[in-house]
Amino acid sequence: MREVSIIGAYETVHGNHSKRMLRDLVSEAGNGVIQDSGIDRKEIQAVFVGNYAGQEFNNQNTMGSYVATVLGLGDRPAMKLEGACASGGLAFKAGFDAIASGAYDTVLVFGVEKMNTKDPTTTMEIVSRGQDSEFEGGFCVSGPSGFALNAIRHMHEFGTTREMLGVVAEKNYFHGSKNPFAHKQKVIPLKNILNARIVTTPFGFHDMSLVTDAATAVILTTREKAKSISKKPILVKGTGQGGDYFTLSMKRDSVSFPATEKAAFQAFKMAGVDRKDIDVLECHDCFTITEIINLEDLGFVEKGKGGGFTLDGHSRLGGKLPVNTSGGLKAKGHPIGATGVGQVVEMVYQLRETSGERQVKNARTALTHVLGGPGAVCVVNILQRDFE
Amino acid sequence: MREVSIIGAYETVHGNHSKRMLRDLVSEAGNGVIQDSGIDRKEIQAVFVGNYAGQEFNNQNTMGSYVATVLGLGDRPAMKLEGACASGGLAFKAGFDAIASGAYDTVLVFGVEKMNTKDPTTTMEIVSRGQDSEFEGGFCVSGPSGFALNAIRHMHEFGTTREMLGVVAEKNYFHGSKNPFAHKQKVIPLKNILNARIVTTPFGFHDMSLVTDAATAVILTTREKAKSISKKPILVKGTGQGGDYFTLSMKRDSVSFPATEKAAFQAFKMAGVDRKDIDVLECHDCFTITEIINLEDLGFVEKGKGGGFTLDGHSRLGGKLPVNTSGGLKAKGHPIGATGVGQVVEMVYQLRETSGERQVKNARTALTHVLGGPGAVCVVNILQRDFE
Repeated sequence: MREVSIIGAYETVHGNHSKRMLRDLVSEAGNGVIQDSGIDRKEIQAVFVGNYAGQEFNNQNTMGSYVATVLGLGDRPAMKLEGACASGGLAFKAGFDAIASGAYDTVLVFGVEKMNTKDPTTTMEIVSRGQDSEFEGGFCVSGPSGFALNAIRHMHEFGTTREMLGVVAEKNYFHGSKNPFAHKQKVIPLKNILNARIVTTPFGFHDMSLVTDAATAVILTTREKAKSISKKPILVKGTGQGGDYFTLSMKRDSVSFPATEKAAFQAFKMAGVDRKDIDVLECHDCFTITEIINLEDLGFVEKGKGGGFTLDGHSRLGGKLPVNTSGGLKAKGHPIGATGVGQVVEMVYQLRETSGERQVKNARTALTHVLGGPGAVCVVNILQRDFE
Repeated sequence: MREVSIIGAYETVHGNHSKRMLRDLVSEAGNGVIQDSGIDRKEIQAVFVGNYAGQEFNNQNTMGSYVATVLGLGDRPAMKLEGACASGGLAFKAGFDAIASGAYDTVLVFGVEKMNTKDPTTTMEIVSRGQDSEFEGGFCVSGPSGFALNAIRHMHEFGTTREMLGVVAEKNYFHGSKNPFAHKQKVIPLKNILNARIVTTPFGFHDMSLVTDAATAVILTTREKAKSISKKPILVKGTGQGGDYFTLSMKRDSVSFPATEKAAFQAFKMAGVDRKDIDVLECHDCFTITEIINLEDLGFVEKGKGGGFTLDGHSRLGGKLPVNTSGGLKAKGHPIGATGVGQVVEMVYQLRETSGERQVKNARTALTHVLGGPGAVCVVNILQRDFE
């Protein structure tokens, strides 16, 4: 299996882009990543696109061919991959595999979601189709109410508090305030977060991620080629994909996501690094509780200790393991199919040391984690700077 | 790269299954293919699902995790692949690549579409999202009107006639009449086909494929493992994927699909066989003209000669190259995301010589071809019996 590196990374500013055409977002990110990589677009051999619901948000399905065509790559093999909120992660993994196996030398991995096109109720309906509609849709199970069950159980079993949840949001807003690409670039005091109106117990308004539009992109190539053409190549040291049951009643428990455990196990095994080697990470904070559970499932803290770790400031910029320096899904935003690729973009910026005010000093090794549906799909990547 | 074989194949009867739950169709095909393969489901390591628009037809997105969960495989990595009418082909290719690269030893490749859930106008709207909605949706470009442009130009340049188009339909209805899995199992005389009401010039009602519900599945494993557990393993000798521009105005011409040429070139190169070695094939007859163009693009006849080849009966059962013995998209039906996998199922049955009345004698080598969107996505597979 060949080694794979990242030679280009780009993301549009995350936000409400309802006044821009879908094409325009795609074009900006696609042309941006090609320029960033320094290669000519004719070197791109295939296009892998993560998108969740373009057919409902934008009347546009078949987003693989669409993106390729908009970028002048329409004659290349292209495909869309979908796995709810992990769609971008699946596209990255597919692109990685295609190079590792020798099928292609250089590929474009793309994520896009333009969600601010419907009324909020319709948007929530569309999002809830990433769960088991037949068995659970009729019982009002959706992202918020489903993950709320995890939060309530985690609070019950481990003494996790509303304050701990709030600190996840407060920290990620703080990080987002330093990220010019974030949807919300404003510090919000913990008090306001804790006093916000409750949406679904125990989640208040600020415990939830944003409805965000963005396009995100990276270019992957062989490590060998990356070394020859890039000044700051980033090596994909390890990658893993895990799955878990889609239907809530079939879950092992309510305080962990086994898909994360499996993806992390694979990624760390492939990378040959330890948890302590990770300098910075982006993980899937679709709700505040999710970030806490992720840190446990990824193996950075013991089960049940994620809340305390957060409360103690360890996951904050300047802490021992900065988490979601981009602002995460909470503040950078959650353009569903684009999120998994956008996390990689943020980590590339950190490893290149171009993250400005939110730079983690001497970041050498980074991790990304994205989770789709009711914890059903997970992709974990471990990235490392491959230059001095 | 490891060699890959098919050890299991199953498809539900194609038709209008609006009275069955989506789960029920999925369960039938999934459990059917596992039984056919003779393996235990615990040996399946990953699930690749082709589906076009479950989120609109069935309120169910994230079909990879859904299918895996319904089949008791929820803890395996799963993903949905989408490329319009070629979605099932992309799932097959992804499953093949995963085994060839060594990532997995045994995988389930699944296709599903349950389309008969909306009124016909809404169904057509959903289907038309597999084209460039921003640029062309407003001009009433859809499958029928888009492919009609190909037909008109092909008639103009090469003298292809309405009768030649009609013979494609008449032949495929005839084949479908011998297939107990087909949506339409009835012979329709050429005269009726030619006199049917015009839908969009030059297509009459019978020039178009059906709105069909079905689930289709195959199990892939290494050639080595297949030899040890299967009495009738089918080797995947070659596979290829081609892409082409999504937007009609960017096409090279209107009488060919370059995505097919590229996919066929790759598949034949990998397989190391000639056109004359192919004993039987399934190709994408979404409209009658498409089958004619496909035979040309695949290299079986010269450009412009596909209509005459059909009129002369060469592609009929008993002819020198039987095409769409299943009845094709015309008579077996076109459950969009399931079609690419269903074609493989039909060819497995032919190579195993279990096709009953529609059996092609001594079928040794077969080909499948599926085309998505406005000729934008193509997957070609070459299959060969690997037993005596």
